[in-house]
Amino acid sequence: MAKIVVLGAGMVGKAIARDLSTKYDVTSVDINEYELVKLKADFGIKTIKADLSKTEIVAEIVANFDLVVGAVPGFMGYKTVETVISAGKNIIDISFFPEDLFGLDALAKEKGVTAIVDFGVAPGMPNFILSYHYERMKINNFEYYVGGLPFARTFPFQYKAPFSPVDVIEEYTRPARYKENEHILVKPAMSDIEYMNFDEVGTLEAFNTDGLRSLLRTMNIPNMKEKTLRYPGHIDLIKAFSAAGFFSEDKISIKGQEIKPMDFTSKILFDKWKLNDSDDEFTVMRIIIEGIEDNQNVKYVYDLFDKRDKLSGISSMARTTGFAATSAVNLFLEGKFNQIGICPPEYLGKTEDNYNFILNYQKERNIIYKKEKITC
Amino acid sequence: MAKIVVLGAGMVGKAIARDLSTKYDVTSVDINEYELVKLKADFGIKTIKADLSKTEIVAEIVANFDLVVGAVPGFMGYKTVETVISAGKNIIDISFFPEDLFGLDALAKEKGVTAIVDFGVAPGMPNFILSYHYERMKINNFEYYVGGLPFARTFPFQYKAPFSPVDVIEEYTRPARYKENEHILVKPAMSDIEYMNFDEVGTLEAFNTDGLRSLLRTMNIPNMKEKTLRYPGHIDLIKAFSAAGFFSEDKISIKGQEIKPMDFTSKILFDKWKLNDSDDEFTVMRIIIEGIEDNQNVKYVYDLFDKRDKLSGISSMARTTGFAATSAVNLFLEGKFNQIGICPPEYLGKTEDNYNFILNYQKERNIIYKKEKITC
Repeated sequence: MAKIVVLGAGMVGKAIARDLSTKYDVTSVDINEYELVKLKADFGIKTIKADLSKTEIVAEIVANFDLVVGAVPGFMGYKTVETVISAGKNIIDISFFPEDLFGLDALAKEKGVTAIVDFGVAPGMPNFILSYHYERMKINNFEYYVGGLPFARTFPFQYKAPFSPVDVIEEYTRPARYKENEHILVKPAMSDIEYMNFDEVGTLEAFNTDGLRSLLRTMNIPNMKEKTLRYPGHIDLIKAFSAAGFFSEDKISIKGQEIKPMDFTSKILFDKWKLNDSDDEFTVMRIIIEGIEDNQNVKYVYDLFDKRDKLSGISSMARTTGFAATSAVNLFLEGKFNQIGICPPEYLGKTEDNYNFILNYQKERNIIYKKEKITC
Repeated sequence: MAKIVVLGAGMVGKAIARDLSTKYDVTSVDINEYELVKLKADFGIKTIKADLSKTEIVAEIVANFDLVVGAVPGFMGYKTVETVISAGKNIIDISFFPEDLFGLDALAKEKGVTAIVDFGVAPGMPNFILSYHYERMKINNFEYYVGGLPFARTFPFQYKAPFSPVDVIEEYTRPARYKENEHILVKPAMSDIEYMNFDEVGTLEAFNTDGLRSLLRTMNIPNMKEKTLRYPGHIDLIKAFSAAGFFSEDKISIKGQEIKPMDFTSKILFDKWKLNDSDDEFTVMRIIIEGIEDNQNVKYVYDLFDKRDKLSGISSMARTTGFAATSAVNLFLEGKFNQIGICPPEYLGKTEDNYNFILNYQKERNIIYKKEKITC
């Protein structure tokens, strides 16, 4: 039985460990003992309490395992993946670190390591699904819309963050890179607000974010864009905070204390945006792929709608990202993918077999990508 | 020639001194030398640099004058008026201090002093106009709507504050006292938002604020309310800031520093809301008085619309409040009002003569309360 170590026992890391433990010998590592105790007591998962911000500790731990799953916070991600690769261990990582993925490609190739990165719900599944169709048609346009939201809309933000507010605000402020008519465009974050309707939750607002990442490099498609979904009104409020200077990184002086507005605002939002175990939430995503297939104009639309699983208590965000990652873990362990180097999700979906494997794995866990084909 | 001292040379205090200096011997007092130098050089007004937060200094200064005009910041107002009354000097005050006006009534009567307070554009003119009609009809309903706004609407606040943001936020957070069916009701600040249309500036939003002050005590009218006017959208944004905790007075800890959200937010808003000399702004007010006069249902509507005077460089807020105050100063100095004690504006408007005097004085300065009478 493969021995797997899951680095990080946050919301997603725990869901990954629980899913993998039904089949493999799993060990979870985190600095937070409280989370580890629960994993051990309730699910019989082995645990190690350790500070994963120390590379020598990471190197020492992973030496004893066959495969590593990386689920540390984004800001620790790059260094962690680098350490694991240096240790010669294969890794599936969902830390979504901000640095360039391919910065570690040469190292991974030198070490003969497979490093599957960004394999979550998004980034992740849109890349994977896109690559399947990319092999089978001439794609002219690719776009996707994704959001994780609470069912309860509370004034004023109508939002709960499944991760740190700082990361959410970073998503709201980083300029968005797009592809339009073969050119990469940079648009301001939060631009091009539009309404979109979803059967399950009604009207949401979509706006530009910088989610294409590796696709800008790996895919030769003339038009690509990614947008984030929120309840109507949310992003106008965020724009107001931004325009008023509440996200500024430049210190201001308040009664003799020097403080960054961003630090202050994050602190307030951290309390307001905290996703509690009792908050019912959902993940909604629409992926659109348009082009020519068999000499016909074809449009594929994938719709995902997923809710917190009340029986297991696993949030939708943890399910959709965690089980995307575990589907890739299983694919890899079954020998269906063995490319060396840094591998974003679009490297994995080229074969019919892999495409079915990943989608079926998640379908068995009730994560359903509803596919529609429209020809005209 | 009457010797008048104007305490405070802020935006309104300067306008008052300039207007009075055309007819009287005027001295301005402030701690800010820059403002004093301009008053002296440009308008030949005498000046004294002094710290008006010290009561002994106020007492010493006012001893040499016939009449005092109080134009210090609100938080210094009560103590200043008390000191002036104790010194046996008559005063017209527009500091709009938060404390109960009548707390100084006994002292003023003991000293034989006339203290006209709150005689600005609002509070002030609505009280004054109301008292004129109160003597002549049975009033069932009194309401007024007032706002000082920049012509340029800039994202996100569409607002500039003619005074400190802290005072504006205080206005946005203090519960609003109303009179409905003879009962005093307390409503949350910023409640009952409604659209109102004005010929000169289009649609504004009106919402509850606590502006009735002395009228709740002095007038026996079954229905009274006061609302503040802003551009549509402004108050929703303020509500969002409030609901998110940005106006909280409870300290929070940010990277080891303890800070009140209110202090932080005020600091940011102070920069964003700063009214510059170049910002064209206006004052808009609508006063409605309804009831029975000569056995007829009658409705009086007064509309004020005033802009910055580009020739003099005096802002509309300074004009409308400052020249309301100077109209009262002139009324008093001409012996048309000599009641002893604390006198809110509704004590001054009972006679036809006074009513005409105050409105004509301001009309000569192009501040026009357009009056309409509707009978049905």
